[in-house]
Amino acid sequence: MSFQRIAIIGLGLLGGSIGLACKAYLPEVETTGYDRDPATRKRAAERGLVGHVCETPQEAARQADLVIFCVPPGAMGDAAREIAEALPAGALVSDVGSCKQSIARALAEALPNHRAGGAIIPAHPVAGTENSGPDAGFAELFHNRWCIVTPPEDANLTLLTQLTTFWEALGANVELMSAQHHDLVLAVTSHLPHLIAYTIVGTASDLEEVTRSEVIKYSAGGFRDFTRIAASDPTMWRDVFLSNKEAVLEMLQRFTEDLTALQRAIRVGDGQALFDHFARTRAIRRSIIAEGQDDARPDFGRGDHR
Amino acid sequence: MSFQRIAIIGLGLLGGSIGLACKAYLPEVETTGYDRDPATRKRAAERGLVGHVCETPQEAARQADLVIFCVPPGAMGDAAREIAEALPAGALVSDVGSCKQSIARALAEALPNHRAGGAIIPAHPVAGTENSGPDAGFAELFHNRWCIVTPPEDANLTLLTQLTTFWEALGANVELMSAQHHDLVLAVTSHLPHLIAYTIVGTASDLEEVTRSEVIKYSAGGFRDFTRIAASDPTMWRDVFLSNKEAVLEMLQRFTEDLTALQRAIRVGDGQALFDHFARTRAIRRSIIAEGQDDARPDFGRGDHR
Repeated sequence: MSFQRIAIIGLGLLGGSIGLACKAYLPEVETTGYDRDPATRKRAAERGLVGHVCETPQEAARQADLVIFCVPPGAMGDAAREIAEALPAGALVSDVGSCKQSIARALAEALPNHRAGGAIIPAHPVAGTENSGPDAGFAELFHNRWCIVTPPEDANLTLLTQLTTFWEALGANVELMSAQHHDLVLAVTSHLPHLIAYTIVGTASDLEEVTRSEVIKYSAGGFRDFTRIAASDPTMWRDVFLSNKEAVLEMLQRFTEDLTALQRAIRVGDGQALFDHFARTRAIRRSIIAEGQDDARPDFGRGDHR
Repeated sequence: MSFQRIAIIGLGLLGGSIGLACKAYLPEVETTGYDRDPATRKRAAERGLVGHVCETPQEAARQADLVIFCVPPGAMGDAAREIAEALPAGALVSDVGSCKQSIARALAEALPNHRAGGAIIPAHPVAGTENSGPDAGFAELFHNRWCIVTPPEDANLTLLTQLTTFWEALGANVELMSAQHHDLVLAVTSHLPHLIAYTIVGTASDLEEVTRSEVIKYSAGGFRDFTRIAASDPTMWRDVFLSNKEAVLEMLQRFTEDLTALQRAIRVGDGQALFDHFARTRAIRRSIIAEGQDDARPDFGRGDHR
C-alpha cells in the first residue's frame, strides 16, 4: 500500500466503513475525517471511525495522499471546492458515489489541477445497507463486493494501480469500466430497483381500501422485501436520480414496457405467457447466489429458520 | 385440538411444512398426505412430511376430519373433485391458497354437500419462502406469521374455532376477514410485489447494453433483493394472477400512476418531490420490524456481517 494518509470527507455509512476497514486491514495508514454535521463528527470520534476527526475539511485534507469523498452525489462539487486550496499537489482524489459521469465532471471542475494531472479517479464500491449515518458503518462492508473504478482516459496509471490495491486491501474485487457504462449498469442493478421499491412502498401506504396496519401485518407475503431498500438515505437517492437521469429514464421505459406486457397477459388470461416469464427469472437468482452476491438460505437467511 | 386425522393434499413447501409442524407441535394427530407427482410422494415419505404418504388422494382423505388443499390455486377444484366421494361427511375442508374468492368458489362447486354444511372454510397462512417442492418445507414456517381465515357467512362455528386453534398450534396468529377483502389486501402486500419483481428481473435479463454477467456481478446495489421472490414457483404465481385478476389490475394501475409521477419528477429535476417521497417510505419499514414481520439487521441479516 502506497497511501500513507487518507482523508475521508463524509462520515456516514460508506465513509465510516472505509475508516473502520482501514483500521482493520491497513493499520499502518493514518486516517483523517470530516463531516459537515457536528453531531456526526462527534459520533465518528466516539466510534473511532477515523484516526482523527477534524473540525474543517481543509485540516482533514492538508496532508493526505488520498482523499475520498463520501458525500451525496449532489454535494461532491462543493465538498471538493472547499478543500481545493488545502489539497497537496500529488494527492489522488476519489469518491464512492453511485453515479460516475456527473461526479467526474463535478470533481474535475472543482479541482482543475488534479484533473490535469490525471489524479482524479472516481470509484464506486457496490456495497451498502439500508442504514445511513455514523453508526451504520462496519469494517466488513466491502468483503467480496465489487468496486467499480472509472478512470478517465488520461488517468495517472501509478495512482490507478494504488487505488486498485487499496480497494483490494479492504476486501473488494476491482473492475474497471468507463463512467458512461457504469452509469448504465448501475441504472439497472441499483437505481431502477430503488425507484421501483420507493414507488411500491408509497403506493401501499396510500390506499383507502387497505389500511397501513394491514399492509404491515401481511408484508411477509412479499412486500417486506421492497421496504428494505426503500428505507435508504433519501438525500443520496434524490441526488442519484437527478444525476443519472438519462440512464434511469431509459431503463424505466423498458421496465414499463415489460410490465405492460405482463399486465396485458393477466387481463386476457394468457397463462402460458405468465408461466414462461416466471419460469425464466429463476435462473438469474441461482447465478447471483453461485457468484457469492447473495445468501443461498431461504428468505435471505432472515431469522435463520432452517 | 379436536382434529384427529388431517389429510394434506399437495406436499410442496406449504403442505410439507404443515405436515412437519403437525409432527412437531401436534404429535397426537395422525397425518396422511398425497401429491400427484410420484417423485414428490417418494421424497415426502423419505423426509417424513406426513405420517403416511398415500398413493391416491381418496386414500389420504378417507378417514380425515380435516382436509387441507395445498395445491396451486388453479388446481384446487380438480383436487377437491377427486376426493369428493371419499371425504367423510363431517370433515372440514380448507386450503392455503393466496387467492380466496376464486378458491372458495372452486371448492364449493366441487363439494356442494360440505358447502351446504358450512364445512368449507378457506384459509391463507401468509408465510413462505422462494423455495418450492417437497424439500422446501420446515416446521417453523408459520411461527409469528399471520394466517388469514375467510369463513363464508354460514360457516360452521365449531369448525371455524377448531381451524383457528389448529393454526395457532402451528405458531401462527389468526385473523378473520372476508374473502373479498383478503384478495384486495394480498394484491398489494404479495401479488403486486411478485409481479413487479418478476418484471424487473426479466427487464434486466434482456438488455443489450448491459450483459447478464454484469447484472449478476453488481446485483448487491439493490437488484438482488428482487430476485428472491422472482424465484418463486411459476405455476403457483401464474394461477394467482389469473385468479385474482381484478384486484391485481387495480393495484397495478395505482402503482403505475405513482411511478409515472416519480418519473416526471426525475425528468423535470424536481428534487424536492423525490426527497419528500423517499423520506416518508422509511417509516413503514420501521413498523414492519417493530411488529416482528422482518429482521432488523441490515441487509435482512444476510451473511450476518454485523
